[in-house]
Amino acid sequence: MEMASLSEGLTQILIPAAALVGICFALIQWYLVSKVRVSNESGSGGYNDRLIEEEETEEGVDSLEVSIKCAEIQNAISVGATSFLFTQYKYLSVFMGVFSIVIFLFLGSVKGFSTKSEPCTYNTGNICKPALANAFFSTIAFLLGAVTSTGSGFLGMKIATYANARTTLEARKGVGKAFITAFRSGAVMGFLLAANGLFVLYVSINLFKLYYGNDWEGLYESITGYGLGGSSMALFGRVGGGIYTKAADVGADLVGKVERNIPEDDPRNPAVIADNVGDNVGDIAGMGSDLFGSYAESSCAALFVASISSFGIGHDYTAMSYPLIVSSMGIVVCLITTLFATDLFEIKGVSEIEPTLKRQLLISTVLMTAGIAVVSFFALPSEFTLYNFGTEKTVKNWYLFFCVAIGLWAGLAIGYTTEYYTSNAYSPVQDVADSCRTGAATNVIFGLALGYKSVIIPIFSIAVAIYVSFSLAAMYGIAVAALGMLSTIATGLAIDAYGPISDNAGGIAEMAGMSHKIRERTDALDAAGNTTAAIGKGFAIGSAALVSLALFGAFVSRAGIKTVDVLTPKVFIGLIVGAMLPYWFSAMTMKSVGSAALKMVEEVRRQFNTIPGLMEGRAKPDYATCVKISTDASLREMIPPGALVMLTPLIAGTLFGVETLAGVLAGSLVSGVQVAISASNTGGAWDNAKKYIEAGGSEHAKSLGPKGSDAHKAAVIGDTVGDPLKDTSGPSLNILIKLMAVESLVFAPFFAAHGGLLFKLL
Amino acid sequence: MEMASLSEGLTQILIPAAALVGICFALIQWYLVSKVRVSNESGSGGYNDRLIEEEETEEGVDSLEVSIKCAEIQNAISVGATSFLFTQYKYLSVFMGVFSIVIFLFLGSVKGFSTKSEPCTYNTGNICKPALANAFFSTIAFLLGAVTSTGSGFLGMKIATYANARTTLEARKGVGKAFITAFRSGAVMGFLLAANGLFVLYVSINLFKLYYGNDWEGLYESITGYGLGGSSMALFGRVGGGIYTKAADVGADLVGKVERNIPEDDPRNPAVIADNVGDNVGDIAGMGSDLFGSYAESSCAALFVASISSFGIGHDYTAMSYPLIVSSMGIVVCLITTLFATDLFEIKGVSEIEPTLKRQLLISTVLMTAGIAVVSFFALPSEFTLYNFGTEKTVKNWYLFFCVAIGLWAGLAIGYTTEYYTSNAYSPVQDVADSCRTGAATNVIFGLALGYKSVIIPIFSIAVAIYVSFSLAAMYGIAVAALGMLSTIATGLAIDAYGPISDNAGGIAEMAGMSHKIRERTDALDAAGNTTAAIGKGFAIGSAALVSLALFGAFVSRAGIKTVDVLTPKVFIGLIVGAMLPYWFSAMTMKSVGSAALKMVEEVRRQFNTIPGLMEGRAKPDYATCVKISTDASLREMIPPGALVMLTPLIAGTLFGVETLAGVLAGSLVSGVQVAISASNTGGAWDNAKKYIEAGGSEHAKSLGPKGSDAHKAAVIGDTVGDPLKDTSGPSLNILIKLMAVESLVFAPFFAAHGGLLFKLL
Repeated sequence: MEMASLSEGLTQILIPAAALVGICFALIQWYLVSKVRVSNESGSGGYNDRLIEEEETEEGVDSLEVSIKCAEIQNAISVGATSFLFTQYKYLSVFMGVFSIVIFLFLGSVKGFSTKSEPCTYNTGNICKPALANAFFSTIAFLLGAVTSTGSGFLGMKIATYANARTTLEARKGVGKAFITAFRSGAVMGFLLAANGLFVLYVSINLFKLYYGNDWEGLYESITGYGLGGSSMALFGRVGGGIYTKAADVGADLVGKVERNIPEDDPRNPAVIADNVGDNVGDIAGMGSDLFGSYAESSCAALFVASISSFGIGHDYTAMSYPLIVSSMGIVVCLITTLFATDLFEIKGVSEIEPTLKRQLLISTVLMTAGIAVVSFFALPSEFTLYNFGTEKTVKNWYLFFCVAIGLWAGLAIGYTTEYYTSNAYSPVQDVADSCRTGAATNVIFGLALGYKSVIIPIFSIAVAIYVSFSLAAMYGIAVAALGMLSTIATGLAIDAYGPISDNAGGIAEMAGMSHKIRERTDALDAAGNTTAAIGKGFAIGSAALVSLALFGAFVSRAGIKTVDVLTPKVFIGLIVGAMLPYWFSAMTMKSVGSAALKMVEEVRRQFNTIPGLMEGRAKPDYATCVKISTDASLREMIPPGALVMLTPLIAGTLFGVETLAGVLAGSLVSGVQVAISASNTGGAWDNAKKYIEAGGSEHAKSLGPKGSDAHKAAVIGDTVGDPLKDTSGPSLNILIKLMAVESLVFAPFFAAHGGLLFKLL
Repeated sequence: MEMASLSEGLTQILIPAAALVGICFALIQWYLVSKVRVSNESGSGGYNDRLIEEEETEEGVDSLEVSIKCAEIQNAISVGATSFLFTQYKYLSVFMGVFSIVIFLFLGSVKGFSTKSEPCTYNTGNICKPALANAFFSTIAFLLGAVTSTGSGFLGMKIATYANARTTLEARKGVGKAFITAFRSGAVMGFLLAANGLFVLYVSINLFKLYYGNDWEGLYESITGYGLGGSSMALFGRVGGGIYTKAADVGADLVGKVERNIPEDDPRNPAVIADNVGDNVGDIAGMGSDLFGSYAESSCAALFVASISSFGIGHDYTAMSYPLIVSSMGIVVCLITTLFATDLFEIKGVSEIEPTLKRQLLISTVLMTAGIAVVSFFALPSEFTLYNFGTEKTVKNWYLFFCVAIGLWAGLAIGYTTEYYTSNAYSPVQDVADSCRTGAATNVIFGLALGYKSVIIPIFSIAVAIYVSFSLAAMYGIAVAALGMLSTIATGLAIDAYGPISDNAGGIAEMAGMSHKIRERTDALDAAGNTTAAIGKGFAIGSAALVSLALFGAFVSRAGIKTVDVLTPKVFIGLIVGAMLPYWFSAMTMKSVGSAALKMVEEVRRQFNTIPGLMEGRAKPDYATCVKISTDASLREMIPPGALVMLTPLIAGTLFGVETLAGVLAGSLVSGVQVAISASNTGGAWDNAKKYIEAGGSEHAKSLGPKGSDAHKAAVIGDTVGDPLKDTSGPSLNILIKLMAVESLVFAPFFAAHGGLLFKLL
């Protein structure tokens, strides 16, 4: 068989090299951010000589006091976030331990814990390692994925809490400087995550190979555990973090903004620290784990399908590593892209923020398209065969170019659509803002309608990507299309992390008592951040759809099913129940946020009523109790939705068998995508409709405002309703659909051997 | 082959006899309702001697003036509703004409308009009528279905507008009397619709047989047009009526209740007549057409599958007519059930209303279970074969008993679950009411969560019904399960129509200036009506799910597809796009209601601001302009969603072929059911949470009230948001999923012959 033109030796060098370049680049960005000093003792360092702009003459702007206050607040946020994540990880380590045992026992039981080698399933005529070894290595891979995922989330949080106050301080010098600081910090996170994920995966494969040798089937089967580990941590991160942040946010707003009429992030509000901690544990750590999970899963899905195709059977290492090489190229492309935002151009005004962020997406997509062409030409043989549900499909290398590219461009289409529906520069959000004239009810109706409408283009984009990649290269095509969408993950994460960092920066400015002008700048950064956060969610959902379809295909292949026919009762009931799961899950998470917010409201009210002088700013609120309410609520409430997602595949597979489980996966995928997209966009739109009225940037916006007007009050209600939709239920649904698919994939041999107990009994 | 034990001759007598009994029963109920006099000239007739209760001594209660005022208002509502429906029918007749031509041309082109007879597809060895004849008779059946559907809706509206004022007047004598009047009127509608639908279908089959003779394949293929006609009218009825009623309702509430602080249905509100007209054209006429459509479609689906099974091929007329005989039995059972509510027991207090209505469901279900056993034993041979996607399945008659019965009981489970989630007697609605304490935002969050949660049990019920009936008797099983759920349609419609009638009665009481006590009684009737309306919607959705699956199966059979494999790109893209359609559709309908409501708000505000003395009750508002706004909006806005539903199958089938279309149908079915159930229940729950606070029936409720409190204001916002969800988008979605399926079924031969143009070109 023809081999790839890139040699195995060079592949072995290029992949880790790209990962190391990514890590170095992240460290450089970090160094640049660290040059902004927050504490007083170094305030006279390299910092003062850059205070050159006009705004610095504002009263109090440059005072030492403000800088110290910022450092204090930053420290409080950082300590709160770290302590929450550590508590969460304590719970999660128990889960990881238990679930490791479940994986080992279930997979070990497939061949009755036999230590005998078996004939291979696909690579006929050869001998493969025993099922028990696969059980062991799957468990190890699971733990590796879990640890990398939590590490990624934690790292992201650390960077964000390091950057928030620095962004605030830079905002004194102008919006351009603040933007660069926030964006560079996002880039630190983006590159560290992308490079780290690639590196750990690369090292694991090479270590596993020491045992597996030529049994690539077993090797890549075990590696799928990596995806499962990554995604299950992401689930708890997203759900727990989402409940934490929104309980605090909703609680703070309901009393602070609505009842007491004090501004957002006012230091008198007892829930304000919890709210800012929440941004970091929910949006940053949650999103980091989530996208890392998607990346790990799509790599695993692609590798698994490749291992039972001609690459794997013919032992073509370079072609086998195609998914990793694409990701390596992605890191290089994103590196160049980042320079466009940080070095080649400079932002001079508020109006340039959104276009710059949008341009980042476009540049990375265009460059990556060329990158994919290069990779597809050198890393793949010109013709090869792919496994396609029992049959074989002959594929040319340029087919795969199209698969990856269409995934990449579908991602851009989704990103741009999301921007259109959630940015207050366009008519959809302006219409929603306008509907506030007649009160909160019409605002909610228009917002829900906007969310529903915003699914149309993303779904068509995903459908086209699926059709093209599926037709060209079966399930492998889908997997690499997902990888294509995620290949610019470093840029995607950078612009996504930028959002919560700016949000925090605004909070710190308010709390530190900075001037109105600075608060306006951080608000502008934040408004753009809402849109980029929505874009990030759009990417996360789009890639989740492709990833879970790829995982679904891998599961079906591994379970030995040839068709998933809707016209059989077993599949159909799976389909309809699967389509119901996103609703069940959302009901749980929304209710959790609601209940936790009610508790927060009571506590905040209690403090305002019982602490004398709090409203007048003479007394300090008790921030710690609010942090504790959010922490307790999120840890307690993340268990039921987590259990729903983790147990459904196990129950469906064990009791009803692989056909019903396949139906469940397909149903939850096609239904969950819609719920997730509409929830995220509705929430984003409400948030920006509110900001549109507050900013009063046009005649129309002015006619609705100012803050405190009836229309603004209606907008605040919409924003509050949108909070759990866009930051808790919506983004958690990505993980629901991916996680159920990857879990099914990992447990597929068990279900195929012992599943369907209920039907066997009947 | 063994035949059914019931002879063909007796079958030919029993079916029309049952239909006639149903019609006679409806007329008797009508006569009883008509004994309540509304106009002055006959006020001294048989009416006064029944004024025996204590309440009649209330001031003004029996005055002639009130009676005349009631007659006036009733007349205004009736005239408004009639004129709207006539305008709507004018538009619809154009649509019917155009679509008839489309059907004829598309189906005629299948064999190039040849008038030559062809060999049968399933009844091998025999000669069947030419495709052109099927095209012609399908068109005729379509027109018959359309006319019967519009007739059903119109009749329902006439009865409801006849009954509303009579219910108000009876409320003076006590809640029991008023309940009986409203319930009897509902029964008139229920029985007329059920009996009429059965009768027209029976007559059509017998007339078509004159031409078709022994070609039962062609005969029952053509009859499917009946379902298409019924459902397409229902779509426009539901969407148009839904927009009409909610534009008026939301508009009236936003200005009247929220801004001007005047009660609901206050005669000073210019939109009040439009609101009451809306209840009749939306809830009554829309629901009537909708359930008639479900009934017609499930009968057609069952008949079509039977015609290509052993009944049809062996020409066993009685067994073939099994679906019609089940419906006939249903009429008899519902007749007995109704007597329990109207004659055997009497309602003495407000608290008995809901239990009585619930008991109706239970009684009809229990009786019908016995009825099905009888029918299955006598009307079916003890063993026979059913067509199952290319293979044959041997089935015993008691299998079918289980299929019908499980559909029936699944309906009851759905009904009871809906009641639990929407009645303010249980904790879910009380929790939502409680969340109003912290404002509208938490109310909306809790309400949405409630709606999401309320899908769980219905979906499991539907899944079990599908699994059992599918396993026992393939697609025929699904079709008769749907018929089972609809077999008690007369009772279902009676308790459903009861809701809007009571709502109108309350409106008339308020407008006629009746005493507070009477308004309290009509409010109690109305609160129970909200729950029964939600139950009715639950039934409509549950049956729609089963019906559309049955139609989907019939479509797949007719299109000659053997499997619908999710693992093929054509099917999968259909699935994900299909799952998106309910969102697209809801976005359109919600936005339509929102925009129309905004216009209504402006008009109502204008009138309050420009008509001197309006607020003080010295001047009359201009009701007609508001009626016109609702009319224009609904007629204009019903076209885009209507076009989406009608064109999607045609475009998908013609351009992408039958596999993609099959995916679209499955996707829209499994996703649409969830959206529809959650939307209906969320809306119902908000409405009753508001009523719960207003009624103040418990300590908890009192702590949230009274009317005008902050919590109540928050509840009003939730109620307003829920209006378009529960009365426009939610219920229209049933029709979306059914209609696309039946349309695909009718056009299946065309798609199979000429479909998939785009893929053929590529």
